[in-house]
Amino acid sequence: MTTAPETSGNWIDEHHNGVRYGLEGRVLVEETSPFQRITVIDSQRYGKGLLLDGCWMTAEHQERHYHEALVHPALCSAKAIERVLVIGGGDGGTARECLRYPGVKHLDMVEIDGRVVDLSQEHLPSIGGGCWHDPRFHLTIGDGIAWAAEAENAFYDVVLVDGSDPTGPAEGLFNRAFFSNCCRILKPGGVFATQSESPEAFRQVHIDMVKLIRELFGHADPLYGWVPMYPSGWWSWTFAAKDAPRYLTVQSERAAAVAEGSAIWSPRWQQGAFNTIPAFIERELNQ
Amino acid sequence: MTTAPETSGNWIDEHHNGVRYGLEGRVLVEETSPFQRITVIDSQRYGKGLLLDGCWMTAEHQERHYHEALVHPALCSAKAIERVLVIGGGDGGTARECLRYPGVKHLDMVEIDGRVVDLSQEHLPSIGGGCWHDPRFHLTIGDGIAWAAEAENAFYDVVLVDGSDPTGPAEGLFNRAFFSNCCRILKPGGVFATQSESPEAFRQVHIDMVKLIRELFGHADPLYGWVPMYPSGWWSWTFAAKDAPRYLTVQSERAAAVAEGSAIWSPRWQQGAFNTIPAFIERELNQ
Repeated sequence: MTTAPETSGNWIDEHHNGVRYGLEGRVLVEETSPFQRITVIDSQRYGKGLLLDGCWMTAEHQERHYHEALVHPALCSAKAIERVLVIGGGDGGTARECLRYPGVKHLDMVEIDGRVVDLSQEHLPSIGGGCWHDPRFHLTIGDGIAWAAEAENAFYDVVLVDGSDPTGPAEGLFNRAFFSNCCRILKPGGVFATQSESPEAFRQVHIDMVKLIRELFGHADPLYGWVPMYPSGWWSWTFAAKDAPRYLTVQSERAAAVAEGSAIWSPRWQQGAFNTIPAFIERELNQ
Repeated sequence: MTTAPETSGNWIDEHHNGVRYGLEGRVLVEETSPFQRITVIDSQRYGKGLLLDGCWMTAEHQERHYHEALVHPALCSAKAIERVLVIGGGDGGTARECLRYPGVKHLDMVEIDGRVVDLSQEHLPSIGGGCWHDPRFHLTIGDGIAWAAEAENAFYDVVLVDGSDPTGPAEGLFNRAFFSNCCRILKPGGVFATQSESPEAFRQVHIDMVKLIRELFGHADPLYGWVPMYPSGWWSWTFAAKDAPRYLTVQSERAAAVAEGSAIWSPRWQQGAFNTIPAFIERELNQ
């Protein structure tokens, strides 16, 4: 069942467990794809924005928090970054941040819903930026779970999962079979990263994800940041590697090249964000 | 002019610059004190909560983010902690966290609005906890700005400012005269801390505060955390000292005694939270 956002007067709201977060604005597009309800809005505060199944995904002036946090800790720390896989990420923001690195030679993006790509290109062109026409960018509209299952062993230097919450089309992006394949297709020295929900609004999902990824890869740690439009505003991304917790250490030459153009991320910010694990989560992960 | 929160159906919302954050629940008390509009609500998600002039202040099950972030970096790092001043903090949460330290011998709390204290004691007793009856706790209903102006030089080991946004009764808690007095009444080796707004929703206020406090005290740094009910969910507290940036280093014996009972704060969290300064703020502070 697909869900539209709640609207009343000039407000478009996401409701989550007795809390709502709304932006003042108007709905531009409301349609149902084969996978989900897609809503494009225009807001006073953050420009144009996207909701899927009634949940805030991104907005023109509130997207760098998410995309920089997912991309740079991985791209700055993997041994090599020639071949990158992005699963999901239909708005283009994750690909855009990856393609800022000249070392990225080939980026596969596998997005299940072509309408998300179409509507992002039409209404949110600043989020994808130049990615859609970059010769290194290779878009497949299809199932990222199947893609991960079928890719060769040790094929990618970096694997990034940029999906929505674990209900609806993204449900299969949160389980053992999927993460096992992500681990299998990652090169030694590679880095895996996924958004891993809110430690506050999705506490148990978050804890279970970190534990599972740590078990499968050998090394995994959550990083905490802010996405004001997501439930609680408090968000996490989990990074994993097979050889060592290499995602904790940036390669300074790569970092320097992207730091200047980043709004939120810096090597210092990243170091802090891996340490701001709240005490209640740290206790549960250490059990 | 005082403002009530927006309500529609079962929702109580704070509106801020084209964004709203609402909790599902009902209004228990709505009254106008000589200083502000006070609203007490009962919410499904976070229990009972308090709004002042229509802005979310605290709630039973979402208060530790704020109080632990303000108190522990200061109380764990000041040279001595015998004599503590809290300005504002009428819900009692800041005093409660301070009084967890046996080393605190005398705590003055100066809250301008006695009705906030009355209603917090009646409806939000878990937030103040044992503070109201602790023999070390000394409450004055009065003007914290005047208190800071009249206190003796180098009188307090720790000064904490737990006020609301810089409009209405808290306006005078954000200017040079007030911070100068806070600096004057702080002992050498003491630590000052204040909530310093959101780097996102109150960006310029935040930057101006950090710069001013740094100029006056000699050493000051912002720490970033989460308060989901505040605008953007992304909040900051600024710590200052006269002799050295001593707030960056916890005294391990004091820290160990409070870490076990803390939900969010830990020495590791604190270290991270001082580093998660977003790149756009760091650039402005370094100008």
